[in-house]
Amino acid sequence: MLSVDLNCDLGESYGIFKIGNDSEVLKHITSANIACGYHAGDHNVMMETVKMAKAHGVRIGAHPGFADLHGFGRREMKISAEEIYNLIIYQIGALSAIAKACGTRVVHVKPHGALYNIASKDKEIADAVATAVADVDPSLTLFGLAGSSLVKAGKERGLLVAEEVFADRTYQQDGSLTSRTQSNAMIHDPDLAISRVIRMIREGKVESVDGTDIEMKADTICIHGDEPQALHFAVKLKAALRAEGIQVGRGWDEK
Amino acid sequence: MLSVDLNCDLGESYGIFKIGNDSEVLKHITSANIACGYHAGDHNVMMETVKMAKAHGVRIGAHPGFADLHGFGRREMKISAEEIYNLIIYQIGALSAIAKACGTRVVHVKPHGALYNIASKDKEIADAVATAVADVDPSLTLFGLAGSSLVKAGKERGLLVAEEVFADRTYQQDGSLTSRTQSNAMIHDPDLAISRVIRMIREGKVESVDGTDIEMKADTICIHGDEPQALHFAVKLKAALRAEGIQVGRGWDEK
Amino acid sequence: MLSVDLNCDLGESYGIFKIGNDSEVLKHITSANIACGYHAGDHNVMMETVKMAKAHGVRIGAHPGFADLHGFGRREMKISAEEIYNLIIYQIGALSAIAKACGTRVVHVKPHGALYNIASKDKEIADAVATAVADVDPSLTLFGLAGSSLVKAGKERGLLVAEEVFADRTYQQDGSLTSRTQSNAMIHDPDLAISRVIRMIREGKVESVDGTDIEMKADTICIHGDEPQALHFAVKLKAALRAEGIQVGRGWDEK
Amino acid sequence: MLSVDLNCDLGESYGIFKIGNDSEVLKHITSANIACGYHAGDHNVMMETVKMAKAHGVRIGAHPGFADLHGFGRREMKISAEEIYNLIIYQIGALSAIAKACGTRVVHVKPHGALYNIASKDKEIADAVATAVADVDPSLTLFGLAGSSLVKAGKERGLLVAEEVFADRTYQQDGSLTSRTQSNAMIHDPDLAISRVIRMIREGKVESVDGTDIEMKADTICIHGDEPQALHFAVKLKAALRAEGIQVGRGWDEK
Repeated sequence: MLSVDLNCDLGESYGIFKIGNDSEVLKHITSANIACGYHAGDHNVMMETVKMAKAHGVRIGAHPGFADLHGFGRREMKISAEEIYNLIIYQIGALSAIAKACGTRVVHVKPHGALYNIASKDKEIADAVATAVADVDPSLTLFGLAGSSLVKAGKERGLLVAEEVFADRTYQQDGSLTSRTQSNAMIHDPDLAISRVIRMIREGKVESVDGTDIEMKADTICIHGDEPQALHFAVKLKAALRAEGIQVGRGWDEK
Repeated sequence: MLSVDLNCDLGESYGIFKIGNDSEVLKHITSANIACGYHAGDHNVMMETVKMAKAHGVRIGAHPGFADLHGFGRREMKISAEEIYNLIIYQIGALSAIAKACGTRVVHVKPHGALYNIASKDKEIADAVATAVADVDPSLTLFGLAGSSLVKAGKERGLLVAEEVFADRTYQQDGSLTSRTQSNAMIHDPDLAISRVIRMIREGKVESVDGTDIEMKADTICIHGDEPQALHFAVKLKAALRAEGIQVGRGWDEK
Repeated sequence: MLSVDLNCDLGESYGIFKIGNDSEVLKHITSANIACGYHAGDHNVMMETVKMAKAHGVRIGAHPGFADLHGFGRREMKISAEEIYNLIIYQIGALSAIAKACGTRVVHVKPHGALYNIASKDKEIADAVATAVADVDPSLTLFGLAGSSLVKAGKERGLLVAEEVFADRTYQQDGSLTSRTQSNAMIHDPDLAISRVIRMIREGKVESVDGTDIEMKADTICIHGDEPQALHFAVKLKAALRAEGIQVGRGWDEK
Repeated sequence: MLSVDLNCDLGESYGIFKIGNDSEVLKHITSANIACGYHAGDHNVMMETVKMAKAHGVRIGAHPGFADLHGFGRREMKISAEEIYNLIIYQIGALSAIAKACGTRVVHVKPHGALYNIASKDKEIADAVATAVADVDPSLTLFGLAGSSLVKAGKERGLLVAEEVFADRTYQQDGSLTSRTQSNAMIHDPDLAISRVIRMIREGKVESVDGTDIEMKADTICIHGDEPQALHFAVKLKAALRAEGIQVGRGWDEK
């Protein structure tokens, strides 16, 4: 049976600064990527978010990012591969201990923002991220952009890898996301977005911006949680997946 | 055979800001309390310090503190017991993952600075610290001021507890440390300091500032690492302990 | 003619973390206390908030706080009077330069959160705050809790002082605010709150929780900006003030 | 009479983390670039450093950098020109208020680390820095790499500009510094370094790495303060300058 995971970034509040709609989002996803206190989140938010995810039966992942709260981890920073290895391990460990104290555990890792983007393209950084994950816990699943350097680096180290696709984004012929600075970066029609996702799951293909089909494996779909319409889309997507006989949940056997 | 552990705070550098003399200190101690990135240390320093401690055969402990790099965790902050529980878990987890990636593990926890002081006196905070340690890993040894609330809280939760004494400090009749604002807080004569320590180990007693003997259990002695004379004292202390037939190392069976 | 100033804390967003409803609040107040990047705000938010305040003709004040973004400056920290002097000057300077670049200037200073509370009671800290303000710019008006140590410290240094009252809070017989932990701390009836404020402005008196009248000078009223009902109250209060012939705006001559 | 200014980065300590040798360096320089709390320094260190510089008769400049204490402002960050404008103004303002409270004032601005490097090459960022300086105080002197985009941007805005040279670095034919990753980046022979500096001052020329002479204006020389040999070099350089009849101090008329 075909299946697909739905993931969303959660636990991004910080102190009194509240963002997101986590308790609502948790009803619609199967994997939560929880911020680890570097680009967002703090020890209190992490504890609360882990408890909520556990209560909803949603799988818990670490969402490590650059130590840039002000830029929300979205700004590129020139950081060595060695330091990225270290900061990934630190953040996974922090969330893992919180999960353990809650009687649950971290089962996947998805890098955040600028770190995700860099690890998608830069082999040295991708290797650092994947090695960090493998060195902390080789049973973790690594989430990365479908077809990216990060996915390759994870596979090379024997990690379970979940290839991630974006329903609302277009793809270049080389499989990379069209930059948001381009006018054709986003797919605004929910029905088109859903039919593209279903094709990725069924056929492993998607049409790129120049009209040719490219390979695109969809193990997990990124759901946005910050806007009301994003949740409406998630609801609609789930209904469509079910109608197609596609199971919502992890399609891989966790170690 | 009598024995006593020697512990020191390590890994307190941050970015290009270097403090301490860690590679030298590691030759003289048996337990390293490693800063976890809140009051000092960072993911790079932690990785490097864990590797050095492992190479020297020194046991590794987490040294969690308040998130106050500017005040080095020495400033009292009004933080709830619930938040202290969370921040202890976060920091232990971060160091544990780094230790795991280095093929070793964290075996003790000693709170830092203002957090250590508050947990020595305030039962609610002591309980939060001890519960956090027990919830992350009940095999961890909790280091606390000898006879303090923190030691009691650890014992109540079934944790191994190491009672810590200070060779260069005087004690009040209630077993608390004389405040540094008092002129008689410090013991400047190394020979006196050493003879007091040996008596604590042999007899479980020390003379308080008002001349009466009080109970004082010495499982571990705090060694300062920041000044050259501190290391000279450590060398002298170790020689005296050996001459007395007291083994330097952990006297308790780790779980 | 009687008059009273209405002030509100603004510019408390940080990076992508948005809080408050500044553009709406600015329609209803005469003084904006702008966060300076320590407990909230950042250089971008400060620039934007100064521009908005200027556009609305609202007077600009610095709102310095503890360097505790995570605790939003609400947690007490043991910081020396000397350091508080320094951090006040730093924050006033940062906002003043931004105001200057926008063709306007900072005309008042109101300490934030825990710093405000401590400076209300602790003479040494009150002196440090008032001296800092006087040393940076003796033409600044110092905002402080009516009748507090901070108000006294400001007057002693020859500063213009605006005594601040809270419409929705009750007062103890000594003029201090009833702690929020008490059930009678808040005034929930808007009409009662308004009639109390008008009496403070007209008669300089308010009824304390034990039923006796105490002196209470009301130069400026603190308006909350974070909840919709707070703005409804501000609108209602302004209408009542006008009906009473009380001018909304600064009643003191700025230097 | 020929003259040249000697500048050094100072006030880079943070909390208990002490770096540099400021009290000694101040004996040998004429301009101090003081860190403003973003990449280094804090409000206490700034206050102390301003007082020391004033006591030594050394001119005070703001040394703004990226908000990256962990990376000491040396890591490139993708930050918009608009944000750089804001962060420069914030930092100049903070130091200016501290200087004012000490009865002195800020007279120049030199960007730090990665910000200095980017502003040397990127016209948009150079314009943002120069406009920020001009908008805060058009009487400030802007320090920038000799011949760089920053120097040009300052001149275009009518600012006084001090062109900075590095005695211990080699130059490419286009006037840029040879990257430190190149083996020929540094000049290790102090006598050669001094003779090159004197030629820059006398003739406005220096030999580039490919053997050709290039234009190089030397208004101010960067002195390093972090190593003992750096100070020995400063002493030797000053003696050589005096022997050549070159005055040590600012050769431009401040506004």
